[in-house]
Amino acid sequence: MTHADPDHVYTAALAPTTDGGRLTLPIEEDMDDEIRALVARLQPDAVRNSDGTELPEIAAELVEKVYSTYFPARGDQEFALAHPDTLTHMFLMTAPATALGEEPLTIRLIEGYFLDQLRPDTSEAATRYLQVIDRTTGDEVDARGWELTGEGHDAEVRIVSPTPFHVYTVAFLAEQVWDSTQMYNYLTNDWHLDPSRQKVRPYEVRKPVVWDYMKRAIAQWCKEHPEVDVVRFTTFFHHFTLVFNTEGVEKFVDWFGYSASVSPEALEAFEAEYGYGLTGEDFVDAGYYNCPFRVPTRAYRDWIDFQHHFVTAHMKALVDAVHDAGKEAMMFLGDNWMGCEPYGEHFPAVGMDAVVGSVGSAATCRMISDIPGVRYTEGRFLPYFFPDVFNPDGDPLGEANESWRTARRAIVRFPLSRMGYGGYLSLATQFPEFIDRIEEIIAEFRSLHSASGGERPANSRHRVGILNAWGALRTWQTHMVAHAKWYKQIYTYLGVVESLAGLPFDVEFLSFDDVRDGVPEDIAVLINAGSAGTAFSGGPAWADEQLVTSVRRFVAAGGGFIGVGEPSAYTPAAREGFDQRGAGAILQLADVLGIDRETGWSLSTNFYPELADHEITADLPGELWAGERPGDVFATTASILRLHEGSVDIAVNSYGAGHAVYLAGLPYSTDNARLLHRAIVFAATGSQDDMTEVWLSGDARLEVAYYPNVNRLFVFNSSHDHVETDVRGPAGERLRVKLGDLQSTWIELAS
Amino acid sequence: MTHADPDHVYTAALAPTTDGGRLTLPIEEDMDDEIRALVARLQPDAVRNSDGTELPEIAAELVEKVYSTYFPARGDQEFALAHPDTLTHMFLMTAPATALGEEPLTIRLIEGYFLDQLRPDTSEAATRYLQVIDRTTGDEVDARGWELTGEGHDAEVRIVSPTPFHVYTVAFLAEQVWDSTQMYNYLTNDWHLDPSRQKVRPYEVRKPVVWDYMKRAIAQWCKEHPEVDVVRFTTFFHHFTLVFNTEGVEKFVDWFGYSASVSPEALEAFEAEYGYGLTGEDFVDAGYYNCPFRVPTRAYRDWIDFQHHFVTAHMKALVDAVHDAGKEAMMFLGDNWMGCEPYGEHFPAVGMDAVVGSVGSAATCRMISDIPGVRYTEGRFLPYFFPDVFNPDGDPLGEANESWRTARRAIVRFPLSRMGYGGYLSLATQFPEFIDRIEEIIAEFRSLHSASGGERPANSRHRVGILNAWGALRTWQTHMVAHAKWYKQIYTYLGVVESLAGLPFDVEFLSFDDVRDGVPEDIAVLINAGSAGTAFSGGPAWADEQLVTSVRRFVAAGGGFIGVGEPSAYTPAAREGFDQRGAGAILQLADVLGIDRETGWSLSTNFYPELADHEITADLPGELWAGERPGDVFATTASILRLHEGSVDIAVNSYGAGHAVYLAGLPYSTDNARLLHRAIVFAATGSQDDMTEVWLSGDARLEVAYYPNVNRLFVFNSSHDHVETDVRGPAGERLRVKLGDLQSTWIELAS
Repeated sequence: MTHADPDHVYTAALAPTTDGGRLTLPIEEDMDDEIRALVARLQPDAVRNSDGTELPEIAAELVEKVYSTYFPARGDQEFALAHPDTLTHMFLMTAPATALGEEPLTIRLIEGYFLDQLRPDTSEAATRYLQVIDRTTGDEVDARGWELTGEGHDAEVRIVSPTPFHVYTVAFLAEQVWDSTQMYNYLTNDWHLDPSRQKVRPYEVRKPVVWDYMKRAIAQWCKEHPEVDVVRFTTFFHHFTLVFNTEGVEKFVDWFGYSASVSPEALEAFEAEYGYGLTGEDFVDAGYYNCPFRVPTRAYRDWIDFQHHFVTAHMKALVDAVHDAGKEAMMFLGDNWMGCEPYGEHFPAVGMDAVVGSVGSAATCRMISDIPGVRYTEGRFLPYFFPDVFNPDGDPLGEANESWRTARRAIVRFPLSRMGYGGYLSLATQFPEFIDRIEEIIAEFRSLHSASGGERPANSRHRVGILNAWGALRTWQTHMVAHAKWYKQIYTYLGVVESLAGLPFDVEFLSFDDVRDGVPEDIAVLINAGSAGTAFSGGPAWADEQLVTSVRRFVAAGGGFIGVGEPSAYTPAAREGFDQRGAGAILQLADVLGIDRETGWSLSTNFYPELADHEITADLPGELWAGERPGDVFATTASILRLHEGSVDIAVNSYGAGHAVYLAGLPYSTDNARLLHRAIVFAATGSQDDMTEVWLSGDARLEVAYYPNVNRLFVFNSSHDHVETDVRGPAGERLRVKLGDLQSTWIELAS
Repeated sequence: MTHADPDHVYTAALAPTTDGGRLTLPIEEDMDDEIRALVARLQPDAVRNSDGTELPEIAAELVEKVYSTYFPARGDQEFALAHPDTLTHMFLMTAPATALGEEPLTIRLIEGYFLDQLRPDTSEAATRYLQVIDRTTGDEVDARGWELTGEGHDAEVRIVSPTPFHVYTVAFLAEQVWDSTQMYNYLTNDWHLDPSRQKVRPYEVRKPVVWDYMKRAIAQWCKEHPEVDVVRFTTFFHHFTLVFNTEGVEKFVDWFGYSASVSPEALEAFEAEYGYGLTGEDFVDAGYYNCPFRVPTRAYRDWIDFQHHFVTAHMKALVDAVHDAGKEAMMFLGDNWMGCEPYGEHFPAVGMDAVVGSVGSAATCRMISDIPGVRYTEGRFLPYFFPDVFNPDGDPLGEANESWRTARRAIVRFPLSRMGYGGYLSLATQFPEFIDRIEEIIAEFRSLHSASGGERPANSRHRVGILNAWGALRTWQTHMVAHAKWYKQIYTYLGVVESLAGLPFDVEFLSFDDVRDGVPEDIAVLINAGSAGTAFSGGPAWADEQLVTSVRRFVAAGGGFIGVGEPSAYTPAAREGFDQRGAGAILQLADVLGIDRETGWSLSTNFYPELADHEITADLPGELWAGERPGDVFATTASILRLHEGSVDIAVNSYGAGHAVYLAGLPYSTDNARLLHRAIVFAATGSQDDMTEVWLSGDARLEVAYYPNVNRLFVFNSSHDHVETDVRGPAGERLRVKLGDLQSTWIELAS
């Protein structure tokens, strides 16, 4: 740590730290000496087993805490096999089938699905929810119009007199005969070669026999495992939607999907509680299965609320049992996590001690660290100590660096309490450079807790609200299909939250309902980012006069609005029957943004785009990396800052006393994060005066965190480049910093 | 002309022709000797004057026919100035204005428009049609809610108590105080420097005083111009929509737009005839002004029918007067052509002798040549003999070649009767290489009439139907904004008609109404090409169960379907209030095509795209030039032939006994035209056996026309490359042809 000196060039320097802890290591048997040496060196305060490894007996003597995984809904296969009628369910839809004539149309329910995973439930309780829909008209086919024959995998629906050339689908309940995660692990790791591995069956918490068992089992398990300090739930009751196809590979995945949270019991309970019954269509959703990109229906929201309430209540009972046994309860973020909803209303009441999750990006890091109602959080860093990376051709060091580069930005803004690794330690120790590098990373991680004085760095006073259909429930979880997996259609928008995860702004996730009657007073800038028709852009929500006038009022009164991609897109004129009196705009906030989307209808109007200079692009010398531009955009009243093939990439607009910024897309890069930083300050204030409101680096690749309580700066390089630049403070302070590949430094400011 | 010899390599050879004629030259005064020499060399049979030139006295002695322009609706400015109350009108909309509070909102009507061109009509007859709309709700503001103050350019509408943060527009009738084309010529040629030039005012045919005058004037003019053989109407009564902005440059252009065909008289007549009144909104259409990309409303279609009926009846009266004077009537395709509708029901009854139009592409060439009900057609070739090209830095030769390269493909398939040039001959004669080249082009053009035996070449038996909202009314006129002008948003689709204009298929333009109750029996393949929501793709038309089942039935019975871009795209789930039972498909013919559009909703579904080989891409070794791919596309049942960044570019599908092809886009190129040729044959038959049904070149750059009546081939090179390839016939014939840059050859087949 060095003292601030304007004539000095600051280079890489770690804060001296004598602290250990904040680290969980995976350990295994038969390497006690190596483990002892490594523990002395890396100073973990917790150890864990991994899938396929057992904790060695020395575990408890080495560290303060021993973790052990616990699987409430699939951990006991003896119980599962003894109770074959307790399988969990999933709502499935058959592939659309066209009646090519007047002949009866026969549809085999399980066609296209993985027989080892799923089996149609042809019990009376389940077939009550079977639903046949004519997709050409949208009408349900009356039950007298079809017949169900066969059982299980042989079940077929025969539509007796289909309307020729109409398309039909069947929604039905299937039993899950194989747990999705265990199936995934089994198939990808060739466990069929190991006769000791069985296919694991999940059991349904809604069945009284199951729930009675679950309560007893956790108490018993705690009693039988005195060496365990932390029960790591992996996770609770219902798996996210993960369906395999006939080839035994992934067919459908939705990390947020509730399709596998259904059961006749739950559906009945819902009807009793909410006063209306749900149908198969409420779940299969025309084949989109309510993926988070769909604007959620009232029924689907109600189901989430219903399950969240039930699941958290039952989680609490298990967590209480853990606490009663003198242990801590930790929840893994993923797998059977449906209904847990860490940002849901009832989650804090569970009394969970900690959440642990995989760190795949800055946004997924914040998704863990920001969870309210837990005492601590832990990030599982990449790479896993698995043979796919830890082999002579692998690059474990590179992966560790990449994980740190992306995660560090988020950790600086809102530190995870702890970090950890997973996999087989015996593999990792064969790569000494890797151990050297993680030793550095661990030290730097600890410094963010110690040198920071244990507080978060200062943020701008301009609070940012991300506006979409989901709001707080999907905090840091927007535009995701499956955790941090890359998709061509999402990276353009993920960059917005990825940038924000490491920028000095307080961020809140707001639903349209949250702002309909007025934007919360503490919000300075609203961001609406997404493709037309998705829950993140908003789709039909923008037909709501109250919503559009509320946002317009907010901006006109001095607020900021940033639209990315197709913000506020909604096309009334696309309505059936052709709405003659269209809004005359594709983006319903076209007046606020001063731009609109070209869909072919405005081609007759000439625009004469001229480029303007503006401070928000001061750090963007060239073209914007806008990702998958969602379409052509023209400016009406906005000033255009960047054009790409005649389409607006960046524009700014004034609106009453407020300001708006349009960005065609914002994949994450250090340049784009800086652009967003500038855009937020401009949208909030109409100027760039507040850019050094806390501290700012002169080069977007270096990022700065200022800790007012200890009057220190942490400067870090989020690139692999060597960068030398000025770092400026709010009072005109100026320091010179020079950092190499991913390097960082702590600077003690003069008091 | 050579005889077919399989051992011979055929090279460029023009059919010997002794014919002259089929050519119109622009001539002017003060160059009689040069004109005489040129006439002897090029052998025109008609001459014309141009804008700004007078016919020399020798005209009649040189050629058979002398053309002269005639402007029915603006030719006599003495009359116009003497009758200031006869100005034509236009419906305009003010720019959307947001009420930023509860204060009255004042909107100046003419704001943003060109004062020299337009003036709000504040007469009682006109303000009856003034309409204020709240765009946020779509509701009309009651007349008690606003006040109109001021006259003409000072007219303002004051909305007394606007709803805060709602957006308002005003639709109103403006008088056209300057004719749009003359204004364009005046401004672009700096005629303000020439005091003899006045600003020309158009007069309204609906006024009895005008119509009485028009009838008298044409008879009088014919009498006074005995030297004129052909009266070239430029054109009739109402100009296409062309509006300039405050800077005096183009603000809005729609070559098909009827906004300038309105008048209080016409609106009253419409109401009397159709039994319902039209409003401003029916014309301003939320600011899109019913551009051809908008799915046309019933009201707009009725207006077109109404004006077409009126305009053709009045055209007929003028044409009859011309005929009574012993002259021919020729119509220029453009300018004041609204209501003429050359493909409209009443056009043939006009008795027009000829249509002349500018040749900008193969499609625009066919737009002229295919017009029914005229005795002959004429194409005005590029370049105009104007100083912008005929100068030391210009490339008149290159432009002539480019014009010939694009137009020839169409002329081969359906010859224009005549060709011609425009501009100042005195300029062209200064470029002898240009004269040499057009001499060749003229000879080649004539050979298409003489060596062909005067008949069209053989076409495939597979008739193609282009399916959109407009149908036959917009034959060869799809996806156009302003004649052959290039737009980023249209070239991807224009390539379909541009390709077809030169391919050996009979092409018909069908509306959705034409196929709703069954696809016409003679159609082998339907093509639906366009962006989602446009009239060319169809938008809400695809919500019609009858339409989708009709097309499905057609294909299932063995028909072909080719979709380009976003065919059959319609998203019921984007409806206000969120339609829960969505179709589950973005493309309503997803089952026929075996592909669908990704809008974010299907991301959870895994697709495992695999590339297949298929004969339709036999001539496409690399990637498809797909233009502006309209979005991500995935395959369900189709075989994928080309992928671009994970999105389907080309796919084929079987459907019942029929076949479908998807193309992400098809800008015109020789490769893409060949791909379309192959796709049509595959869609029609499920195989490629019919590719040599007439004759086919082995290289897409060479095109072949076969004339069965004279048993001859015309082979031409549509590229600048030197190409040697086989040309194959239906009976297995094979000839070797080698042609250089744009060359062609006639081959006499053995009988």
